[in-house]
Amino acid sequence: MKEAKRYREAGVDLESADRAKSRLGELVRGTFSGKVAGDFGDFGSAFSLKSYGGKEKYLVSSVDGVGTKLKIAFMASHHDTVGHDLVNHLVNDILCLGARPIFFMDYIGLGKMNEDIVLDIVKGIAEGCKENGCALLGGETAEMPGFYSEGEYDIAGFMAGIADKGILPGKGALKPGDLILGFSSSGLHTNGYTLARKAFFEIGKMKLDDIVPETGTRLRDELLKIHFSYFDIIYPLMKKKLIKAAAHITGGGFEGNISRILSPRVDAVINTYHWFTPGIFKSIIRLAKVGVEEMYRVFNMGIGFVTIVGENDIPRLRKYLDAGDCEVIPVGVLRKGTGKVILQYE
Amino acid sequence: MKEAKRYREAGVDLESADRAKSRLGELVRGTFSGKVAGDFGDFGSAFSLKSYGGKEKYLVSSVDGVGTKLKIAFMASHHDTVGHDLVNHLVNDILCLGARPIFFMDYIGLGKMNEDIVLDIVKGIAEGCKENGCALLGGETAEMPGFYSEGEYDIAGFMAGIADKGILPGKGALKPGDLILGFSSSGLHTNGYTLARKAFFEIGKMKLDDIVPETGTRLRDELLKIHFSYFDIIYPLMKKKLIKAAAHITGGGFEGNISRILSPRVDAVINTYHWFTPGIFKSIIRLAKVGVEEMYRVFNMGIGFVTIVGENDIPRLRKYLDAGDCEVIPVGVLRKGTGKVILQYE
Repeated sequence: MKEAKRYREAGVDLESADRAKSRLGELVRGTFSGKVAGDFGDFGSAFSLKSYGGKEKYLVSSVDGVGTKLKIAFMASHHDTVGHDLVNHLVNDILCLGARPIFFMDYIGLGKMNEDIVLDIVKGIAEGCKENGCALLGGETAEMPGFYSEGEYDIAGFMAGIADKGILPGKGALKPGDLILGFSSSGLHTNGYTLARKAFFEIGKMKLDDIVPETGTRLRDELLKIHFSYFDIIYPLMKKKLIKAAAHITGGGFEGNISRILSPRVDAVINTYHWFTPGIFKSIIRLAKVGVEEMYRVFNMGIGFVTIVGENDIPRLRKYLDAGDCEVIPVGVLRKGTGKVILQYE
Repeated sequence: MKEAKRYREAGVDLESADRAKSRLGELVRGTFSGKVAGDFGDFGSAFSLKSYGGKEKYLVSSVDGVGTKLKIAFMASHHDTVGHDLVNHLVNDILCLGARPIFFMDYIGLGKMNEDIVLDIVKGIAEGCKENGCALLGGETAEMPGFYSEGEYDIAGFMAGIADKGILPGKGALKPGDLILGFSSSGLHTNGYTLARKAFFEIGKMKLDDIVPETGTRLRDELLKIHFSYFDIIYPLMKKKLIKAAAHITGGGFEGNISRILSPRVDAVINTYHWFTPGIFKSIIRLAKVGVEEMYRVFNMGIGFVTIVGENDIPRLRKYLDAGDCEVIPVGVLRKGTGKVILQYE
């Protein structure tokens, strides 16, 4: 391929890109279901709408990145979890609209093609897709000399899912007295990393292999914990009509995210003393002297997902709610109001 | 919002992000059709599958970026065309699978929130969506301190479309004697910018406002010309069953892209002397002394899209093909072969 020579001198290596592409193909095909038509390498990716279409179905989509959690991956030279983070994050987002994931697509921008890094990223994405039962339908890896520092990259993901009409009852169903259930997070998930990095590395002068006193674990492991996917726990409850509304607690925290699902006739009152603040957040408070209100606006503070449920459904819910790695905590109630989220700190 | 103070000190300005968000909402809603359920600001975006679903429909998706054409936008401080480029590029990609666009989502990564830049980018995206009749269903603007240089950003887009089963006949329909029609490009589109920048700025020491001798126009205008969308020309021909296959000529050029649509029983022979090389490409050849073969591998060389059509359909096609800004040129034929693309230079 000598014709590609001058292009490579200008900073783009088409041969290396081609090599990475063929290895990617295997990872990608491993996530395909019978719904995927066509193959890796087409101009677009075709997904059969058989049994998905019609007026009773909605296609629900969301797009996001991983934010500056990527900087931890760069520091740790550990690139096979951020893709999984991205998929799980987006699964949780579309779950708030009652959707089950059907396919995912990724964009990776990097300064210089590095096959090993790209394959690690896609490995994490493929694992996330398998965990959540969706196809990795396609993606783009863009070599952009002069945009990203050596060994660095940005990733974005696009998730498509299908929601059955009426799986969630709509905001009108929310009533004073409804309970707000919180589901525990696995750590920071993918939010607040700019502040967390400032606390640990700039103020605390910590190294990735240092032990965090409040958790007893290595900083590296805490900061790279994979964003938890709530799909397997929550979606079956939605199908049983036990969930009135759901919010993924990401940037903006409780206030920024729960306010999106309230009607203008109710307020959500969150009793933050109903659960223990995980050590990793305590550690950030200690190091960066962040006020508790700001902590709750930037971080999930131990609760990664909340659902609003009817008081009368609690006995039925109880049966389904004592399984797995995820703790379920009644974190608050709805009361008559105007759509506000009120955090009570004791 | 004093609780956001410390987070801002760490480099993330939630207030400015919120302000940009509310101005974005207006641009986004301007692209909505009756198919969009929900509103800007939800966790995901819902799109009704009414009249789209069933076993006769495929959802076709593609993801891409604009590549280093963005550097031209940075140099020119001109941010309202790259979004349009991105949409048109992806429209052309899914058109190769016979799909019409239904919705688009964007990801913008930038180092520091700059409302004006983000709004310009989204303005271009919204214009692209309107041109191609698709909804701008959602997007993510990620503020990532330390990832991008001051005033720089990366953008990625996700396009979803619907293809009717059988709108294209499949590779088996390709026969020796079929014609390859080329559709003229508006310029570089979004490929080869790393090499083009090297030629014009590094070797040629040109400024954006210099006149390109081969075109008689300003370099700025040539390099920022919007990627042409072939949807309005090609899709009606697909519905009339006049198109056997289609390829978008992007990175990889004729060989890299036409080879994706050939069957293993035919070769595509392209007669590059059937059309004139546009001045902008001649200028790159002169400055960077790039060989013609490499030029055809990196750039579209004046033909942005090709279709394969049956010889007998030419009389019917002729009626539809003399309209608009886009020139249609018979660029080659299929002959018995093994799936190769052969470029003839006279």
